[in-house]
Amino acid sequence: MDYSQLALEKHRAWKGKIRVEAACPITNTEELSTAYTPGVAAPCLAIRDNPDLSYTYTRRGDLVAVVTDGTAVLGLGDIGPEAGMPVMEGKCALFKKFGNVDAFPLCIRSKDPDEIVRTIELLAGSFGGINLEDIAAPRCFEIEEKLKQRLDIPVFHDDQHGTAVVTAAALLNALRVVSKAPSDVRVVVNGAGAAGTACTKLLLDLGIKQVIVCDRQGALVPGLAGMTPAQEALAAITNPQKKSGTLADVLCGADVLMGFSAPHCVTGDMVRSMAPDAIVFACANPTPEITPEEALSAGARIVGTGRSDTPNQINNLLAFPGIFRGALDVRAREINEAMKVAAAYALADLIEPSQRSETNIIPSVFDPRVAPAVAKAVAQAARTSGVARV
Amino acid sequence: MDYSQLALEKHRAWKGKIRVEAACPITNTEELSTAYTPGVAAPCLAIRDNPDLSYTYTRRGDLVAVVTDGTAVLGLGDIGPEAGMPVMEGKCALFKKFGNVDAFPLCIRSKDPDEIVRTIELLAGSFGGINLEDIAAPRCFEIEEKLKQRLDIPVFHDDQHGTAVVTAAALLNALRVVSKAPSDVRVVVNGAGAAGTACTKLLLDLGIKQVIVCDRQGALVPGLAGMTPAQEALAAITNPQKKSGTLADVLCGADVLMGFSAPHCVTGDMVRSMAPDAIVFACANPTPEITPEEALSAGARIVGTGRSDTPNQINNLLAFPGIFRGALDVRAREINEAMKVAAAYALADLIEPSQRSETNIIPSVFDPRVAPAVAKAVAQAARTSGVARV
Repeated sequence: MDYSQLALEKHRAWKGKIRVEAACPITNTEELSTAYTPGVAAPCLAIRDNPDLSYTYTRRGDLVAVVTDGTAVLGLGDIGPEAGMPVMEGKCALFKKFGNVDAFPLCIRSKDPDEIVRTIELLAGSFGGINLEDIAAPRCFEIEEKLKQRLDIPVFHDDQHGTAVVTAAALLNALRVVSKAPSDVRVVVNGAGAAGTACTKLLLDLGIKQVIVCDRQGALVPGLAGMTPAQEALAAITNPQKKSGTLADVLCGADVLMGFSAPHCVTGDMVRSMAPDAIVFACANPTPEITPEEALSAGARIVGTGRSDTPNQINNLLAFPGIFRGALDVRAREINEAMKVAAAYALADLIEPSQRSETNIIPSVFDPRVAPAVAKAVAQAARTSGVARV
Repeated sequence: MDYSQLALEKHRAWKGKIRVEAACPITNTEELSTAYTPGVAAPCLAIRDNPDLSYTYTRRGDLVAVVTDGTAVLGLGDIGPEAGMPVMEGKCALFKKFGNVDAFPLCIRSKDPDEIVRTIELLAGSFGGINLEDIAAPRCFEIEEKLKQRLDIPVFHDDQHGTAVVTAAALLNALRVVSKAPSDVRVVVNGAGAAGTACTKLLLDLGIKQVIVCDRQGALVPGLAGMTPAQEALAAITNPQKKSGTLADVLCGADVLMGFSAPHCVTGDMVRSMAPDAIVFACANPTPEITPEEALSAGARIVGTGRSDTPNQINNLLAFPGIFRGALDVRAREINEAMKVAAAYALADLIEPSQRSETNIIPSVFDPRVAPAVAKAVAQAARTSGVARV
């Protein structure tokens, strides 16, 4: 179904998908004097003397900034900060509805990584966490890395890590269905952008030893000509057998294909060349690398996509509300690998063993258990890994 | 009454005085596909092709950023951005409750005017207006001026212009009570900070010809040694008779004193030296330049302060919600002098002639007519002065 016309009508009627509401009574002089001047001076002075009290006396501990430069909005590319706002408002509405996290969208009119970093750094005292959104690779890596170094609140690029967590969860259950161990399988990740890069790293953290990353020039392997620094870094930690060649070459005999690339770039023949009980996640959105029908008829046993109209939808919405909720609940200094791994297992474990099947490897986004389960696991992992502050 | 303890308790219970709420349904796949992907691509692309549509498809047209650097919070001075947040959240709650304006607080960790300007400029596409708050003079003048040059949305430093509008409204009615014409009176403004400077300019726009500004070194007059550029600019447009001397010197025979200065800096003797039917606005907050009792017993006929526990409270809350509401309603490019003058008259005219008295020159902040009346006048003035876009 094409939602364009309905979305235009609804967006015109909504005139914004979020609202800022007052959450204190101000109907008489006493209430005004308590919420505002002169009474408000007391919490101000308390925070001046101990900045940590900003989590006690303000909304900070429940508040996340959703920040974009508008350069990689959905599959639309660089449409500019104002045009990215409907997505950012939608993201904020999802944060609230699914994670009870207050989120506020900020679209930055700059493509200079240092300027974007500095802008966010200057505003960080107003928020409990930073969700980077729809910022193009490789700029997104640099921005996230610098912010993580400079800020003591969680910084999370959802296009990378949200996608990685949900894909990892789906893979964990898919491997359970086909009875293969993570340590034994060979995974090919196609596309070394934001999602593919983060997903690769998380797969390694899950104990998967053989991961090969393909990008436009083929399998990434040390020494390959023309790699970016980000690609070189990936090549150094993956592809232990140093396979080179095209996507078709390395896919031959692989157990898993994870596509974060382009529509229709995977053929039935490629899938046919994979190992028995092949798992294919074709996450290009809205048009996958290969349709589920085609992949299944070429012998894949389990298929997932980003789409809501086919089984096994790999949707970030399963991750980011619970991840931030958990991180905020323990006032985590960061969202680290241990917290992402915990989130992936928590998501996967929501599917009862008796319910697991080729078409049921990941919960529905409307399953009300999802965000609380993810939040609990993430908070626990934050404590265990020493980054929780309360 | 001391509200400190009550305010601490209430702020701890509120845990933030504003909330971000979702304002669209997301309970099933169809709603998710309309509010978010894939449907959301349609409004994104519409805005990409015509950025003005950000006012149609997002919250921008109702949204104001409340921005501070935390350097002049209430009377507390430079307490830092995090510590300013309770005031900013309170301001945002007031924007919503009184003007139905969505407002969101941003505290910037910088005291460099250019860096503050650049930060706001980069974020301006996310907002319909910018309310600067509690930024110390003279930095506030530079920041506001540069932002006005660079942005095509309203930029309004409330400590300057909100205060000026309300004080001007109170003065208009006070002069009506004592039957003096604006063109005939001599006004002494004590304190050339943010409020005093803006108030002086607005008094001139109201047709008051004789305004003398005093600062720490006495009456500002061209040639006075040691003036800042801002003081020199004020001296050049005020004090037509080029009076020099102390506050006490120039107050002798004056009709009006407006204090935006320091507690207890005006004596009964100074008030006694003023013209008959003297008007004294002692706006230092929370402790005025002279208590109302003292001023009245020294012969002042009308006294106003910033306090809610004495008559004639001069409170910004009477101005900023309606001013922004009116400016947003017509998508004004700026908030200009004509709009401020219109706001002052609209406020003053809410007091019926038959109701006007020495103790009733300005409406109550809880008078529900205030924000609508101000908004209507401001919107009309925006149209008349050619800055309205719809």
